[in-house]
Amino acid sequence: MTSDLIQRTVRAIQPVDSLELQLILQQRLDNLTKPPGSLGRLEQLALRYGLARGTADFSLRRKSIYVFCADHGIAAEGVSAYPAAVTVQMVRNFVRGGAAINVICRQLGIETAIVDMGINGPVEAGTLDCKIALGARNWLHEPAMTADQAVQCVEAGIKLATEAARTADVLGVGEMGIGNSTTAAALFSAFSGIDPQLTVGPGTGVTGDVLVRKADVVRQALRLHAPEASDPLGVLAAVGGFDIGGICGFLLGAAARRVPVVMDGFITGAAALIAYALSPPLRDYLFFSHLSAESGHARMLEFLDVQPLLSLDMRLGEGTGAALGINLIETAVRIYTEMATFSEASVSRNSE
Amino acid sequence: MTSDLIQRTVRAIQPVDSLELQLILQQRLDNLTKPPGSLGRLEQLALRYGLARGTADFSLRRKSIYVFCADHGIAAEGVSAYPAAVTVQMVRNFVRGGAAINVICRQLGIETAIVDMGINGPVEAGTLDCKIALGARNWLHEPAMTADQAVQCVEAGIKLATEAARTADVLGVGEMGIGNSTTAAALFSAFSGIDPQLTVGPGTGVTGDVLVRKADVVRQALRLHAPEASDPLGVLAAVGGFDIGGICGFLLGAAARRVPVVMDGFITGAAALIAYALSPPLRDYLFFSHLSAESGHARMLEFLDVQPLLSLDMRLGEGTGAALGINLIETAVRIYTEMATFSEASVSRNSE
Repeated sequence: MTSDLIQRTVRAIQPVDSLELQLILQQRLDNLTKPPGSLGRLEQLALRYGLARGTADFSLRRKSIYVFCADHGIAAEGVSAYPAAVTVQMVRNFVRGGAAINVICRQLGIETAIVDMGINGPVEAGTLDCKIALGARNWLHEPAMTADQAVQCVEAGIKLATEAARTADVLGVGEMGIGNSTTAAALFSAFSGIDPQLTVGPGTGVTGDVLVRKADVVRQALRLHAPEASDPLGVLAAVGGFDIGGICGFLLGAAARRVPVVMDGFITGAAALIAYALSPPLRDYLFFSHLSAESGHARMLEFLDVQPLLSLDMRLGEGTGAALGINLIETAVRIYTEMATFSEASVSRNSE
Repeated sequence: MTSDLIQRTVRAIQPVDSLELQLILQQRLDNLTKPPGSLGRLEQLALRYGLARGTADFSLRRKSIYVFCADHGIAAEGVSAYPAAVTVQMVRNFVRGGAAINVICRQLGIETAIVDMGINGPVEAGTLDCKIALGARNWLHEPAMTADQAVQCVEAGIKLATEAARTADVLGVGEMGIGNSTTAAALFSAFSGIDPQLTVGPGTGVTGDVLVRKADVVRQALRLHAPEASDPLGVLAAVGGFDIGGICGFLLGAAARRVPVVMDGFITGAAALIAYALSPPLRDYLFFSHLSAESGHARMLEFLDVQPLLSLDMRLGEGTGAALGINLIETAVRIYTEMATFSEASVSRNSE
């Protein structure tokens, strides 16, 4: 189950392995007026950014975060602390600029795009219309979407990224969708084989019996659909969501154009699981912004074998972590491009 | 050993303990359109910031970092990877805008002030002249400074902060001075009783035998001067430096005016040790930006009983960590002031 566009995109994603470029980047970093390596992960970020871009001559001006929004039929199982209507309400809040992601992106000079991947309501003015359906179906009882819809939402993400990559120097992903932390846990369990008890978490704030119920729902669904990790789009169709499918495509589309993408938390991470399964070299283009307080996220990052940049006990989603991560990457790129070298500044080098 | 100004400043620092204000701040945070607590440490930062300011009606516009620069006679013992001349050279780099701290502050809209607390050279145009002497003396053989000089540098810091507090909503501290990580280790050992082997670290990049020598130098000096932690300015005079004394005064002066100060790494942390010893309530006004890669810093933060915001393996100083910390506090304050509430945005609350 795939499509021409998806296959072409996956083939276009090349691993980052230029030793020559790496040496050029490292040499510049070491010539800047600071002890070598003393800016730690900022220096590593500049290096990884340059490698992803495929050039030593880069800058970072245009930054955009795409917030993928969709409803989830699984919300009917009472797995969220908020009613499903909140998806529509929060999308309106995004469009009006009142949500956390708006505030943070205004501060940091990051553009936001709100994407309707499948909200249960009319397309809101000010959002990008990629609506596949009025929400994914309740995957406790039936597949979340058809095979065609799985392809459609991934393709929609690819197209968005292809367009965004024309002007953006870095992209970020976020999401909104009541029920989507349950969907993300199902995807994580499907790809990792880890028991749902260890992949589900509070999401918007459920505890106790509801949390137990959340794990049961995932366990039952995985038994019902028996999705195969070797068929990533099949897993998406079985227990996924349109928001997550859109993000998966977006990651692939951006990497195919060599534009780095900054990940948010647990839910965008579930999209990365699908995308990695389609394209292992994708990992060179992704930056993991933060360790979420959502309990399954630490395990997910371990499964992905990545180190997040921040750990601030955040668990909101929307792209709030991605925004902070983009800002750190901007700092790293500016260090690389704007700092004086030892010779420019007439500063003595160390005694080595 | 103290002065009228120091005593008045210390008396003016009041603990932050308004339960009423705390409730007002928490209520606003919980009314914003996000699950309660889902922005984690950003919410805690907004709360702590408001408590320090003593009001629920705050904003964060003006941000400044003061970089305290001085030379250290101890550099003659070969404890740094760089020659002492680099202090003067880097100060010129700061004034011209080519250093890491300049780049990061330009990005984040933070003003910088470069303070000459005791550089071994003429006062550079573009720096603030608080020069006490042409560097502290070599404390392996004699006290770093006289009792009068210890008072003078702390007073200079208080005056700078008092002036800065007229307009700044948040302040940060940084430093530059070849040899000052050895001085900071000596201060940390003097206040904590921890063996110098565990308080010294690579600084600008020393390893092996030089690192062993660095610990020996600290150990010998503490035996020679036998500074008493109960006499904080006596410790400063024995094994301190003018940069660190200035920062100590700056922290006290800012807290006396209820302006929060964001700390940088190991060296500014040593200044906090002196300032805490003078004023325990100071802690309510300080924000620790990051865990430095300097090996003694984790132990120092533990000794201070504080949790840093970031951990990015940075160990440059200059205020680079403080700048990133200020930016996170700005995010937190903007979340508090700019986000829509549930009722403003017509978003349903959770089912609790």
